[in-house]
Amino acid sequence: MTLFPNTLGYKSELQTDAQGVLHHLLTLDGLSQATLLGLLDRAQQFVDGQNGHGALAGVAMCTLFFEPSTRTRLSFQRAAQRLGADVLNFDAATSSTTKGETARDTLKNIEAMGVRGFVIRHHEDGVLNELARHVNADTRIINAGDGRSAHPTQGLLDMLTLRQAKGHDFSKLKIAIVGDVLHSRVARSDLHALRTLGATDIRVCGPASLLPPVDDSGGMLHGCTVTGNFNEAIEGADVLMMLRLQRERMEQGLVSSLENYHRDYGLTEARMKRASPDAVVMHPGPMNRGVEIDDAVADGQQSLILDQVANGVAVRMAVLETLLR
Amino acid sequence: MTLFPNTLGYKSELQTDAQGVLHHLLTLDGLSQATLLGLLDRAQQFVDGQNGHGALAGVAMCTLFFEPSTRTRLSFQRAAQRLGADVLNFDAATSSTTKGETARDTLKNIEAMGVRGFVIRHHEDGVLNELARHVNADTRIINAGDGRSAHPTQGLLDMLTLRQAKGHDFSKLKIAIVGDVLHSRVARSDLHALRTLGATDIRVCGPASLLPPVDDSGGMLHGCTVTGNFNEAIEGADVLMMLRLQRERMEQGLVSSLENYHRDYGLTEARMKRASPDAVVMHPGPMNRGVEIDDAVADGQQSLILDQVANGVAVRMAVLETLLR
Amino acid sequence: MTLFPNTLGYKSELQTDAQGVLHHLLTLDGLSQATLLGLLDRAQQFVDGQNGHGALAGVAMCTLFFEPSTRTRLSFQRAAQRLGADVLNFDAATSSTTKGETARDTLKNIEAMGVRGFVIRHHEDGVLNELARHVNADTRIINAGDGRSAHPTQGLLDMLTLRQAKGHDFSKLKIAIVGDVLHSRVARSDLHALRTLGATDIRVCGPASLLPPVDDSGGMLHGCTVTGNFNEAIEGADVLMMLRLQRERMEQGLVSSLENYHRDYGLTEARMKRASPDAVVMHPGPMNRGVEIDDAVADGQQSLILDQVANGVAVRMAVLETLLR
Repeated sequence: MTLFPNTLGYKSELQTDAQGVLHHLLTLDGLSQATLLGLLDRAQQFVDGQNGHGALAGVAMCTLFFEPSTRTRLSFQRAAQRLGADVLNFDAATSSTTKGETARDTLKNIEAMGVRGFVIRHHEDGVLNELARHVNADTRIINAGDGRSAHPTQGLLDMLTLRQAKGHDFSKLKIAIVGDVLHSRVARSDLHALRTLGATDIRVCGPASLLPPVDDSGGMLHGCTVTGNFNEAIEGADVLMMLRLQRERMEQGLVSSLENYHRDYGLTEARMKRASPDAVVMHPGPMNRGVEIDDAVADGQQSLILDQVANGVAVRMAVLETLLR
Repeated sequence: MTLFPNTLGYKSELQTDAQGVLHHLLTLDGLSQATLLGLLDRAQQFVDGQNGHGALAGVAMCTLFFEPSTRTRLSFQRAAQRLGADVLNFDAATSSTTKGETARDTLKNIEAMGVRGFVIRHHEDGVLNELARHVNADTRIINAGDGRSAHPTQGLLDMLTLRQAKGHDFSKLKIAIVGDVLHSRVARSDLHALRTLGATDIRVCGPASLLPPVDDSGGMLHGCTVTGNFNEAIEGADVLMMLRLQRERMEQGLVSSLENYHRDYGLTEARMKRASPDAVVMHPGPMNRGVEIDDAVADGQQSLILDQVANGVAVRMAVLETLLR
Repeated sequence: MTLFPNTLGYKSELQTDAQGVLHHLLTLDGLSQATLLGLLDRAQQFVDGQNGHGALAGVAMCTLFFEPSTRTRLSFQRAAQRLGADVLNFDAATSSTTKGETARDTLKNIEAMGVRGFVIRHHEDGVLNELARHVNADTRIINAGDGRSAHPTQGLLDMLTLRQAKGHDFSKLKIAIVGDVLHSRVARSDLHALRTLGATDIRVCGPASLLPPVDDSGGMLHGCTVTGNFNEAIEGADVLMMLRLQRERMEQGLVSSLENYHRDYGLTEARMKRASPDAVVMHPGPMNRGVEIDDAVADGQQSLILDQVANGVAVRMAVLETLLR
């Protein structure tokens, strides 16, 4: 049984052309190290103050969110503003006009308005893949998070943040990814990117109910150390990537209580002592303070959480520029 | 009894000045052929790639939707972007601030902020008419759909699409308009424009419960062939304009079932064979696939549905530029 | 007992630096006359047609509304457009992403995206104060209305409107503020500004249930004449500032009926006869016509209500430019 959706369809044959040039950004799975590094290097230039204005002047793009996420949308909007693109926003989650209309019809209609770039979030796995098969040749799709499959710009911004803190060589880093790995598109995109960029010591940690099956060979946890014991996972770690716990996991009976979850998988100052003294802390936000992470850690010296947000704009600029220029 | 609202108030005396110059676009009813052709010719230039940027630089306009319609709003926004206008959006349908405030107060307030153009959608007939009487001399109102009365930019984009496919002479065309004609502002604006542009063979078709009374002299169906028999209406037709069936017609008891509606008034490949071999298919969207139109037709070679959407941006650019420059 | 929140924390030590330069605009309380006049003079230049475009080119700001207010947001957006700023909008009142996230985390995240200016509305008193303590040194906060505490740009636009109508010397003006003073941040900001600009004859009027306690020394009503009798308050008045009556005051039992309220505190043409013949009428909007104000007065020759709206854009331009340039 494969709990995770098959993501083969997202691989490079759909999102890159015969020469390996990126057409869409659907997943980090299957992207070459050179492609990832190219995007990260360009993003770093934007972090360093390079002015992107005018790069996308007159280019129209649309944020098309079938699942609401104001922060991700704002980050893409800010990136588009800095590049001078024209942005339309379609909040499909609340729109009445999509009633009885397929996602594909919605997309094809906005495409017909002259929109070339689509930043799409969707709650279902596989929908973006399907959409990408039906767009015009010069239309570009950027995955802003779909189902449990992928959140590639989050993966890229995490890599950029990690690189700024720990340098370009990931091979010696001890990295712990902790929490609801089973449902996390962030974890999945991080794992794809980390492996491609050379990380070898990746510890994946969470309650058994929130971990994919370890025997899912070739799957998400391939090559990772998997454990239910946070103390084990954090031991000597250089990087702590904490995941958000959706409150619905309680209702689904996957987590017994927030208190128990915090006790077993919450990142506290006490637990931080087991990590490397210069360990860094990351979280994709929004945080459940007091659940998966304590205030003292989230706001502490070792937290890179706001750096991640800042890097998010730069990474999205790099992606938009690369695909739409 | 007149089921349809009296639209005399929308005629040229309110929307044009003494010299016949267009001030507002409330309806296509009463507009001269020269005015319609002027707008269509200008729109065609935008379709052909003319760059409108800067034409409305510094001009502020507001989309003011008392009935939600994301796609129409996006189309106007895109048109405004291409002309360089500043756009504000007021979703009055969900805004709490309009509670206890009249549409007129809302409009007059936004007008006082320095906004000169208003793109308004309203569920009630006659409200736009009333609003147009109370705006400042240099304020312009564009009807983005009101009640069952008018949707003039939809009418214009349908004419532009038809002209691209069938040439400028409408006098020989056999045109069928099929579906919920009774409640359709699209049908109404199309009928006004078709007659003004010289169409003579117009067949209006739908179930009796969704057709205006035929004896409504001087009304909507004046000069049209009216029939409840789709096969009759489609016979040898050059143009098939399908209308959206609102699901609420079922609840209102005006349609017995979607299955029956599809059987009698759904456009299928089989039925298409009765039309002219080079007949074109149009639909204002969003479509109920499998109800008023089948996939094979909607996505087929003869479908102009996405052309309509593309032309919508160009037509709205022409209207905005004409009224606000 | 102090019904009103202590606003000491909003005073100049938080919103101005050691040299008295304005960093945030949280309240008009404690701002110097020179600061107020500087903002009003700049706003008047924008009213007189000065073009602000380009002043904030490349500067990103965000409207962050924890309580919905479309009109205030549109006014700030229009001001930002005229200055060429990049605007993001976060409707935190309806956003799902803020679930379980603090206002501070939301703000810090958007700040990390490179946003320098925040226009914030919040239903709770004191939250903006707290937020201002935690932003970066070059971030600026503008209060777009918080709880019952302050609505400083409304206070400024009221002063600008008053100055245009009655000249710069407020010392001889007889000013009546009428209605739900107890819950009104508008009244509070007006009172702060009026006193700083030299007004001495201020009559505060409303039902006892909607007035702060008169013995609240040093408080809101300091130096004002307080009365429950509208005829007394309006006698010979030069300025009538009417306040909006929230319908929820009925449900709270603070007002017996709209009819009674209108009878006792509604501004009618008849009552206007008691005021100075050249009295002016103001209202912050949106109006409850027929409750606190009659149509004949709201739309009459002496009404400055739409001037207030127009001045709102100019005042907000002055504030944004001053804080963010």
